[in-house]
Amino acid sequence: MSLNEYLAAQVHLIDCELDRLVPPETTPPATIHRAMRYSLFAGGKRIRPLLCLAAAEAVRGDSLGALTAACTLEFIHTYSLIHDDLPALDNDDYRRGKLTCHKIFGDAMAILAGDALLTLAFEILATKITIPCGIRLIAELSTAAGTVGGMIGGQVADLEGEGQAPDAALLESIHRAKTGALLRASVRMGAICAGADPGQFEALSSYGEHIGLAFQMVDDILDVEESSQALGKTAGKDAQQQKITFPAVYGLAESKRMADTELQMAHAALEPFGESARRLLDLADLIVRRKA
Amino acid sequence: MSLNEYLAAQVHLIDCELDRLVPPETTPPATIHRAMRYSLFAGGKRIRPLLCLAAAEAVRGDSLGALTAACTLEFIHTYSLIHDDLPALDNDDYRRGKLTCHKIFGDAMAILAGDALLTLAFEILATKITIPCGIRLIAELSTAAGTVGGMIGGQVADLEGEGQAPDAALLESIHRAKTGALLRASVRMGAICAGADPGQFEALSSYGEHIGLAFQMVDDILDVEESSQALGKTAGKDAQQQKITFPAVYGLAESKRMADTELQMAHAALEPFGESARRLLDLADLIVRRKA
Repeated sequence: MSLNEYLAAQVHLIDCELDRLVPPETTPPATIHRAMRYSLFAGGKRIRPLLCLAAAEAVRGDSLGALTAACTLEFIHTYSLIHDDLPALDNDDYRRGKLTCHKIFGDAMAILAGDALLTLAFEILATKITIPCGIRLIAELSTAAGTVGGMIGGQVADLEGEGQAPDAALLESIHRAKTGALLRASVRMGAICAGADPGQFEALSSYGEHIGLAFQMVDDILDVEESSQALGKTAGKDAQQQKITFPAVYGLAESKRMADTELQMAHAALEPFGESARRLLDLADLIVRRKA
Repeated sequence: MSLNEYLAAQVHLIDCELDRLVPPETTPPATIHRAMRYSLFAGGKRIRPLLCLAAAEAVRGDSLGALTAACTLEFIHTYSLIHDDLPALDNDDYRRGKLTCHKIFGDAMAILAGDALLTLAFEILATKITIPCGIRLIAELSTAAGTVGGMIGGQVADLEGEGQAPDAALLESIHRAKTGALLRASVRMGAICAGADPGQFEALSSYGEHIGLAFQMVDDILDVEESSQALGKTAGKDAQQQKITFPAVYGLAESKRMADTELQMAHAALEPFGESARRLLDLADLIVRRKA
């Protein structure tokens, strides 16, 4: 199967499972389920679920039993985007070329839809996982999404960093938390579902950290280089908001070199897995070479 | 021990445990931990943790092992208040006589502090519960907080009900979800921690449903009868926002009679427990006879 065929098949699986896991639009109160579904099916690339499934494949050759857990990562990612886009935070009208949740459903419903996706992620892990590792998955996901080294912590540090002098240590700690923690958790949750041994778990965690940093480096680079049309969201906002970014601290050329180094280190971390890590290698390449 | 001594002792225990469970104000990023703590220690009556502990007592004579789970209910309750008070939702400047979270920390931080308390509740249940029922507790709490018959669902139905004709069936479904689900979950989580048998679990669930309805009836009555000063929040907002309330549907006198009926049914549900349910009986009386 070519990489494109593999990705299309996996994304289809993920989309079907997401659809199964979220209450239908007809379930009352209907508006909140419409708002949740609007953002969940607004063209996301499903990178986190894909990483989760590919990590399970690296461990046991297939991703059986990891699909439901994989989808909870997309719930957390989507909730964070909905809240991030609110007028009180980044105030973005567009995301992936579509109007943001609050532009369609209003601020109140967008706040509640984000809350609902966050809550549903944990409800699903507690009620719909057949493998006996639900508690470990919830621990992993909640920690990665939380305030201490996790996603919310990174968002707060990012907000507070606006306008501050560019600082390499602060930059790395923000991005390890803001995007890195959830990407790392994606891989680790796949490893947990597949019953990874401690050595495999460590190797996959290391891979997850390197692609987490690479992902954010590329994100920062694209915000400088690409047009809003290509990104599907407002470009150049980092500079406008005086965010601490990799290009601001290291310059564009060095940021690109650093992303390549992280990619190589991600590859190296997968060596013990041989051919079964092929899709994880592919995903790392895609993350670093993406254009939006 | 008198009831007042019992309550003071339990609230002290709960406050100490809450303090232990939330990252210190000095842990970076400090602002979010300050915002979480501000709202968590803003004078809440701890009704949900108290119910959880008293339910455990009813089952096994003491509340050992239920304290940590009890506190996660206060996290969920506090997050819902922070988000409810936001300008995009109820736009309240005061809560329990103190400025609301967003008035002190800004809307962005209040949104994130709510998200963080919600996330932390599940992290704690997944990582800090020694008894082997973490998954059941997470299932219980997430369902009660969710969109289908849970807290968020009730909030949405409540928002959408504004200005609609008062309707008895809609009113009950809103309040069963909006406040009833979490109060019921409080009692059920105590029962789970204490190892209740199915009969005990059902009896406590029934108690929880009756006090859930009684609680909301009294809340609606107080909004009509008491001053803003006594309530510590803006009084008369229900009528102003054309909310569907018990007094609007049934009138004040009938609403009071209905609350008393729910109280009696809550008492009746506890009969099988005899003397060990004494504190649950006391809490039901307090809920119905409160003045704020």
